[in-house]
Amino acid sequence: MKKLTHTDENGKANMVDVSSKDKQIRSAHAFAEVLLPVKVFRAIKKNLVAKGDVLTVAKIAGIQAAKKTFELIPLCHNIFISKVDVFLSLNSKNRTVEIKASVLTTDVTGIEMEALTAVSVAALTVYDMCKAIDKGIIISGIKLLSKTGGKSGDYFFSEAKLLGKEIKKKNS
Amino acid sequence: MKKLTHTDENGKANMVDVSSKDKQIRSAHAFAEVLLPVKVFRAIKKNLVAKGDVLTVAKIAGIQAAKKTFELIPLCHNIFISKVDVFLSLNSKNRTVEIKASVLTTDVTGIEMEALTAVSVAALTVYDMCKAIDKGIIISGIKLLSKTGGKSGDYFFSEAKLLGKEIKKKNS
Amino acid sequence: MKKLTHTDENGKANMVDVSSKDKQIRSAHAFAEVLLPVKVFRAIKKNLVAKGDVLTVAKIAGIQAAKKTFELIPLCHNIFISKVDVFLSLNSKNRTVEIKASVLTTDVTGIEMEALTAVSVAALTVYDMCKAIDKGIIISGIKLLSKTGGKSGDYFFSEAKLLGKEIKKKNS
Amino acid sequence: MKKLTHTDENGKANMVDVSSKDKQIRSAHAFAEVLLPVKVFRAIKKNLVAKGDVLTVAKIAGIQAAKKTFELIPLCHNIFISKVDVFLSLNSKNRTVEIKASVLTTDVTGIEMEALTAVSVAALTVYDMCKAIDKGIIISGIKLLSKTGGKSGDYFFSEAKLLGKEIKKKNS
Amino acid sequence: MKKLTHTDENGKANMVDVSSKDKQIRSAHAFAEVLLPVKVFRAIKKNLVAKGDVLTVAKIAGIQAAKKTFELIPLCHNIFISKVDVFLSLNSKNRTVEIKASVLTTDVTGIEMEALTAVSVAALTVYDMCKAIDKGIIISGIKLLSKTGGKSGDYFFSEAKLLGKEIKKKNS
Amino acid sequence: MKKLTHTDENGKANMVDVSSKDKQIRSAHAFAEVLLPVKVFRAIKKNLVAKGDVLTVAKIAGIQAAKKTFELIPLCHNIFISKVDVFLSLNSKNRTVEIKASVLTTDVTGIEMEALTAVSVAALTVYDMCKAIDKGIIISGIKLLSKTGGKSGDYFFSEAKLLGKEIKKKNS
Repeated sequence: MKKLTHTDENGKANMVDVSSKDKQIRSAHAFAEVLLPVKVFRAIKKNLVAKGDVLTVAKIAGIQAAKKTFELIPLCHNIFISKVDVFLSLNSKNRTVEIKASVLTTDVTGIEMEALTAVSVAALTVYDMCKAIDKGIIISGIKLLSKTGGKSGDYFFSEAKLLGKEIKKKNS
Repeated sequence: MKKLTHTDENGKANMVDVSSKDKQIRSAHAFAEVLLPVKVFRAIKKNLVAKGDVLTVAKIAGIQAAKKTFELIPLCHNIFISKVDVFLSLNSKNRTVEIKASVLTTDVTGIEMEALTAVSVAALTVYDMCKAIDKGIIISGIKLLSKTGGKSGDYFFSEAKLLGKEIKKKNS
Repeated sequence: MKKLTHTDENGKANMVDVSSKDKQIRSAHAFAEVLLPVKVFRAIKKNLVAKGDVLTVAKIAGIQAAKKTFELIPLCHNIFISKVDVFLSLNSKNRTVEIKASVLTTDVTGIEMEALTAVSVAALTVYDMCKAIDKGIIISGIKLLSKTGGKSGDYFFSEAKLLGKEIKKKNS
Repeated sequence: MKKLTHTDENGKANMVDVSSKDKQIRSAHAFAEVLLPVKVFRAIKKNLVAKGDVLTVAKIAGIQAAKKTFELIPLCHNIFISKVDVFLSLNSKNRTVEIKASVLTTDVTGIEMEALTAVSVAALTVYDMCKAIDKGIIISGIKLLSKTGGKSGDYFFSEAKLLGKEIKKKNS
Repeated sequence: MKKLTHTDENGKANMVDVSSKDKQIRSAHAFAEVLLPVKVFRAIKKNLVAKGDVLTVAKIAGIQAAKKTFELIPLCHNIFISKVDVFLSLNSKNRTVEIKASVLTTDVTGIEMEALTAVSVAALTVYDMCKAIDKGIIISGIKLLSKTGGKSGDYFFSEAKLLGKEIKKKNS
Repeated sequence: MKKLTHTDENGKANMVDVSSKDKQIRSAHAFAEVLLPVKVFRAIKKNLVAKGDVLTVAKIAGIQAAKKTFELIPLCHNIFISKVDVFLSLNSKNRTVEIKASVLTTDVTGIEMEALTAVSVAALTVYDMCKAIDKGIIISGIKLLSKTGGKSGDYFFSEAKLLGKEIKKKNS
């Protein structure tokens, strides 16, 4: 059975030692979606049509949050970040804001958490800007889409792996 | 149509002026869940049985994140926080970590974002501690359960309001 | 002769004691301008015409910096900020970006430094975004336009007071 | 026409990707001046004669601000800083505090913003310490004096390039 | 038996709820001493004679650290600080730097931790500035000298209470 | 006579230039102890027996503080940290909490201050969690146990070197 790397043999908190890991290009891509009540969806759409700032503020918040990951997540390393991209777009069919973040590093350990933190804080910022209209907003589906580089190799999210779980949920 | 309070008449970013609002007790309660692959679920369960730190680290991260909300969310105010509670528990039926945060203030504006930030960062911390086992973890269902106090009155999340949306999604 | 309030009788650093000061509405308005080489001015203009983000990023940076003033300026108090507004506009005649910040508080001491920090960091952000085109950008004229509230009363910047100085400079 | 590197083809905020840039020694030197009303100038002079702290506090603030640049300027990278020097001196002829900052890095991208942030925050700190005497203080002339290293080569500020502009201003 | 207020009935981390506490003037005074090897003591003395910055840097660091207490100590509240004083002096008899901090608030809970954090970080800064000469420096005797205000009343440190313990130590 | 490296020839604050130093593995190990009144000692013991969080919170605080060292100590560099370990244990004989921190880096300068900051903030957190029971807690013996790597070579703390001092103190 695979063990938690962030706890020691006694189950106590443990920061991973990365002093012998190699520098290499590593990337991570994360996703989040913000489910919007109708009135909120319309307000954001109207703001975007008017070239307003509502999604830009969230984008900036996401970029800056990536750089704060090491402060927010206790056992994360303070790695160098080569680039952060955060994209937000309205999905009319699902009535959501879809958020994607891509983060690059040339440092010694992965940047999955930076990508996930970027989409999470961008999503929270969307919530903040819209909560006066309706508080029934839900942030959902925060996940790692993929990552490259590092000893553990590349990773791509597979919906299939989750399927069993979802079926189980519906039947419960 | 209700308008975005965090943008001005031109759609530009706008921090709300709270200089004429009253101090009163305000609370906010937020929720998040972390959907876990089987192996991750077992590892956390084993850590908890051994009285390990895995959920405690996330709890502390959540409490501290609440106090950093004003730094993370660009248009949030730096309000005084009277108390933050973050609770994490394993839900065996859904194979999730359920996270609840309760935040109190006696300040001039609401603390919904503090509660939502607390559960989000606690969830990200759970992700961080488990990602070496399996990266197919999903953070979901981040929402405001309720809030009390303030001019806009009390609020309780209603699944019913979202129902229409969910049905729509399944059929799409 | 008026004395420095931020140093004690021996000239040593001294934070002002505000424990007996009253809460009241206080405002501060500050200004900065960024002098732009022709190529930079044109690039910003083009970005604005295309409804791009270049001034919005600076605006967000300014708002967030106001909330960080107490961390940046060693002897500043961590006061509550009721509202921060940062406005950036292109002045074609002077080939500048003009930046104004308005900050409000209901706390026990003034917020001049918050307004000045907001315009300064917004100006630095404009610099950052344009420096790849030409580094001959100059940030200038950072000053307090006015402040209201507080025991020392209202204040309005007067060019006249500075005039003697400027004449002196030209002749030197 | 040279383009803004910090915005993408749609004018949207864009952090520069530095993952393929080389590590090398890079330096940046920045300048700011604080124009002082007579009474403020005398108070600082008196404090310095008494070996007081007034400029030392500003110096420390400048050094620390350089290390916070990545938090303040949204699209800046969190680079390693090898050294920060901040020098403040009284210029009796111009009745100013002159501030210079020199910053060194061995990292993959330039540190112009760190040098400019250092002088700006040092200048703001001088303002803070003196504002009780007279608020008619102006921070001016924040500019990059020079930078070395990096693909774009060395840079030295040239007054001549700005001259056209200044003449234009006087005549306006 | 008195119970830990920062843990709940299950021993889990618990931030104290201060939403029903009154605002009043509260003070806290803390102490730390830095025991110096001979060479370090002489170097600091020489720096002070030359009106150097060595203790001023530590003083500024202490003042700023007080304002960061809520970020450093997980269960601390982000209270408003009315004033922080940090004093450092050389004690030739004991070959120490003695550090005292006085902190004031008008907020709803005590500021003991702010005073203790101020002296601790000031002491660490002294260590940092001298460690190149000799690393055999020890920071010792960090304690609360007194506090006033609050429901629990005033407190003054008593050496007598500690005496039993010290005797016990010597005999062990 | 050895000179202070953190001040220049005039005694003014001076950050050390590390631009020509080599990357190598460097470690630092630090120690602190928290002397506890009887009632506090018993409360912590009871919490530990119940597998409570009291020492875990302090451990997390220590780990996070190590990553904040560059913000707290003005002349410290923002180096990369490969690993931080903080251990807390009850010493029944001395009625203390003993705290040890081990920090690793592969960066260009030492991490003594990170280790010392970790134990100091962990100790302050223990104080915070217990101060409601009895404020007569003392943090003591903060010192560098050892460090390896770097041009100055390895270092191990020697009680003997301090002995002269202690004898001197007892006789005074």
